[in-house]
Amino acid sequence: MNDLEVKNKKNLSGMQDFPMNLASILEHAARFHGDQEIVSRLASGDVHRYTYSDALMRAKKLANALKSYGIEAGDRVATLAWNEYRHLETWYGIAGQGAICHTVNPRLFSDQIRFIINHAGDRLVFVDPAFVALLEGIKHDLPSVELFIVLCDKDQFPATTLNNAIDYESFIADQSSDFSWAELSEESPSSLCYTSGTTGDPKGVLYSHRSNLLMAYASCSADAFNLSSLSTVLMVVPMFHANSWGLVYSAPMTGAKLVLPGPHLDGANIYDLISSEHVSFSAAVPTVWSMLLEHMTNNDLQLPDLKEVVIGGSAVPKSMIIRFKRAYDVDVLQAWGMTELSPLGTLNRPKPATLKLDEDAQFKMAAKQGRALFGVQMCIKSDDGQELPFDGKTPGRLMVRGPWVVRSYYRSDVVILDDDGWFDTGDIATIDSDGFMQITDRAKDIIKSGGEWISSVDLENAAISHPHVRHAAVIGIPHPKWEERPLLLVKLKDGCSLDDQALKDFLKDEVAKWWIPEDIRFVDDIPLTATGKFDKKVLRNQFVINSDS
Amino acid sequence: MNDLEVKNKKNLSGMQDFPMNLASILEHAARFHGDQEIVSRLASGDVHRYTYSDALMRAKKLANALKSYGIEAGDRVATLAWNEYRHLETWYGIAGQGAICHTVNPRLFSDQIRFIINHAGDRLVFVDPAFVALLEGIKHDLPSVELFIVLCDKDQFPATTLNNAIDYESFIADQSSDFSWAELSEESPSSLCYTSGTTGDPKGVLYSHRSNLLMAYASCSADAFNLSSLSTVLMVVPMFHANSWGLVYSAPMTGAKLVLPGPHLDGANIYDLISSEHVSFSAAVPTVWSMLLEHMTNNDLQLPDLKEVVIGGSAVPKSMIIRFKRAYDVDVLQAWGMTELSPLGTLNRPKPATLKLDEDAQFKMAAKQGRALFGVQMCIKSDDGQELPFDGKTPGRLMVRGPWVVRSYYRSDVVILDDDGWFDTGDIATIDSDGFMQITDRAKDIIKSGGEWISSVDLENAAISHPHVRHAAVIGIPHPKWEERPLLLVKLKDGCSLDDQALKDFLKDEVAKWWIPEDIRFVDDIPLTATGKFDKKVLRNQFVINSDS
Repeated sequence: MNDLEVKNKKNLSGMQDFPMNLASILEHAARFHGDQEIVSRLASGDVHRYTYSDALMRAKKLANALKSYGIEAGDRVATLAWNEYRHLETWYGIAGQGAICHTVNPRLFSDQIRFIINHAGDRLVFVDPAFVALLEGIKHDLPSVELFIVLCDKDQFPATTLNNAIDYESFIADQSSDFSWAELSEESPSSLCYTSGTTGDPKGVLYSHRSNLLMAYASCSADAFNLSSLSTVLMVVPMFHANSWGLVYSAPMTGAKLVLPGPHLDGANIYDLISSEHVSFSAAVPTVWSMLLEHMTNNDLQLPDLKEVVIGGSAVPKSMIIRFKRAYDVDVLQAWGMTELSPLGTLNRPKPATLKLDEDAQFKMAAKQGRALFGVQMCIKSDDGQELPFDGKTPGRLMVRGPWVVRSYYRSDVVILDDDGWFDTGDIATIDSDGFMQITDRAKDIIKSGGEWISSVDLENAAISHPHVRHAAVIGIPHPKWEERPLLLVKLKDGCSLDDQALKDFLKDEVAKWWIPEDIRFVDDIPLTATGKFDKKVLRNQFVINSDS
Repeated sequence: MNDLEVKNKKNLSGMQDFPMNLASILEHAARFHGDQEIVSRLASGDVHRYTYSDALMRAKKLANALKSYGIEAGDRVATLAWNEYRHLETWYGIAGQGAICHTVNPRLFSDQIRFIINHAGDRLVFVDPAFVALLEGIKHDLPSVELFIVLCDKDQFPATTLNNAIDYESFIADQSSDFSWAELSEESPSSLCYTSGTTGDPKGVLYSHRSNLLMAYASCSADAFNLSSLSTVLMVVPMFHANSWGLVYSAPMTGAKLVLPGPHLDGANIYDLISSEHVSFSAAVPTVWSMLLEHMTNNDLQLPDLKEVVIGGSAVPKSMIIRFKRAYDVDVLQAWGMTELSPLGTLNRPKPATLKLDEDAQFKMAAKQGRALFGVQMCIKSDDGQELPFDGKTPGRLMVRGPWVVRSYYRSDVVILDDDGWFDTGDIATIDSDGFMQITDRAKDIIKSGGEWISSVDLENAAISHPHVRHAAVIGIPHPKWEERPLLLVKLKDGCSLDDQALKDFLKDEVAKWWIPEDIRFVDDIPLTATGKFDKKVLRNQFVINSDS
């Protein structure tokens, strides 16, 4: 072998060694869609408009300001803010400069926020005026934070007890808008987001330029978000929540018009923005859409420009899908993901076979969580690690792997993957032969009975379909013969009555006979977590101990 | 700093280290679109149908066969074939196994084919029965080739003087359909394609798994090919031509139905495939579309399923764009690229501003080469290396860079980029303020006159618009005062006559006055290259010497 043979054997292609910094997305937007608008509804209610060119120029001023301040590659810089244009600039300015943009969720308990900022070791915090008071409450416990930069003009700077605070405009004012983005390995960290786990301390997921770029590519595609320069995207999903589902990257990548709602997420404000800005595409959790639908119904409104809404974060009721389609001709695209997946795993768009089904069957399909984006590998496994069939019936632990899936949590050396590199999502799901995945339960909530699995979610949904039932929660209780059996807790609607035999009779038509709980308790209240879900940990403490006693 | 701080400073994210082998595309297609069809029209005229699942299974059998044979990572394996299912299997089987899939263009002169196979050092050649005779002619000059594998069944094996030849089905017959794709660095070479340069020997461009994957992601997007699982893609562009414009990767990535025309590229056959397979999307050079349009006009046919055709390889006449739209409601998407760009650089889809123009202005915009895909950086530079404005008027050397742009040709250590990493495409182009690029000339053909540039292409188009002119070619001839002046060579239509003053008068309404050539020659023939373009090298030899004498 001559030298070139050796070189070839070392597997070098003739392509450019060209790692892509996330800032290249904003550069592309400014170069090819420089006049495209970014519209922000500010806390004041005012609407702010500028362009991708403006955003790039200001992100570069910010990058220079960070560099002048002494921020270095790998340093953590936090944000605590609603979706608006300055927050967008921080994402690109911080990561493009080589530092790590750490989005802190202001909805967490202040103890958790304190923990997260300390765990990350954030040197700076960019903060919305609305959240300054929150930081004032914990300021003595944030030793790593050197400076708070309030996302406002100089003349809007709030009275604050924070030492070392400055307004954003003053911070970037004297800086050049010329900046050469950092030359980084594509695997360099770009951003950090903590999961708000129900148990233990929050855990950080450290994204890379590569992981965000690949997910943005995948999520733009026609079978995912289907974004183009003709799209107008209302990004309701908060930038502090699960990486904004990648929209901070995917929208500029395509040159879409971007609309940011600030703190105004109620039905009237969302309606107003969609209507006045001719929004064609939006993404949010179901609660936001419930509020919008209620506002539209109460005021007899329509949304002619809106074509598609992506809904994720929790399962979408089929009734919501039907209502959006029939009343407003809007397609609901269900998505599934998690912070550990950057967060996008699946999206539900119909395949040719789906479109041949009758309307009701199509709605039923649309209520599934969808197909994996290319780049996410997905399977379901049994408890003993065997891959299970894609038959749409067999539930298993949902496992994923790929370049935007977590390997280790931040500041941990523990690789949280199985021997084949799969990450256990903690969800239980089925996958049908067309590849459509449906979450049936959380793994910790499923009831294991006689070697088979009973979905607590399905059983709750069956109970809730009884006209007298307001809430229903199911937990597993130990059973000497069957390992576990379900216990059904029911809160009735006001003024309604029901006995357990009547409910059991009702359930016979809804679920397999062996799923029907022997034990049903009627309760006055079911305890909820901070995020409004049934607190099954509390229920287990209460009822499992009781049933053992 | 503790160890974790050090690790963080070393820029490691928490994401999986997950290089993507190109075979993951076919795995994804088989898993999520296993029943989707791949339809091939064979040389015999028969139609072959199978699914992505079948293709994956057979690609794995092929990978096992290659491994059993002794093919190792980095080895070159050639193909010389039309677009059909076995050829598709070779792309995935060879690259997925770690070797390099070298597509040889059977339209080249046999001397060039001999040169290319020797330069690559191909160990195996997969060959269509149609091209066996071609190889028989050069078989004594192919020392590196150990085995010829003819892409046919055992009972179709042709009589051949090739020693060491076997049919494809026998080659893979005894192999397992279970194969673990090679674990490769993403920068590993996957495939090799030679440019058929007009001067010198062909030069090899060595693609990587990464470059092909990123381009496939980018080209799927809504503003590029807009492919989804609802698409039916007719891949007319040959797999031996410029990496099939990435469609071998992008179509399975989205789960699109894939239709392969084999050698049958005439109007009647293309019409028949589009019609019977309900093709929605196709991609080919202008010649193919001219043949299709002629066939449809002559037979009064329509194509209700066809929505979009991508046209590249040479500029698309505006008249073709108008005819496709008005007569068939098909959108023509002009694309530009080159082998050195894997090959996709730009695609032309309208932006919001374009759609507000009147119809004629929209057609004029559609005749431009389009906007850069995200991932391709693009600028125009003057001869002295200064970046020129995006004003739609100033022409400059078109420069590109990015992860799917060439760095060095195969077996060369010479980096062919300028100091800022830009690759000079050899094209002269303008880019307008919306980012739409338009090729105005090849750099070697442009005429430099008095410090300004005259586009030979524009001047030829102006001359050809005279009703008596059949062909027109323009070359630059040295001029003592202006450096160069254009010389216009004209071939008149049969039975027509025209003198040079009349043609000059005609050109006054078409081009700037200073563009009008002093010298016009009427000729009987204009020499063409092997690919049907004016051979300006021959013309220059002939006329520049004459004008000096």
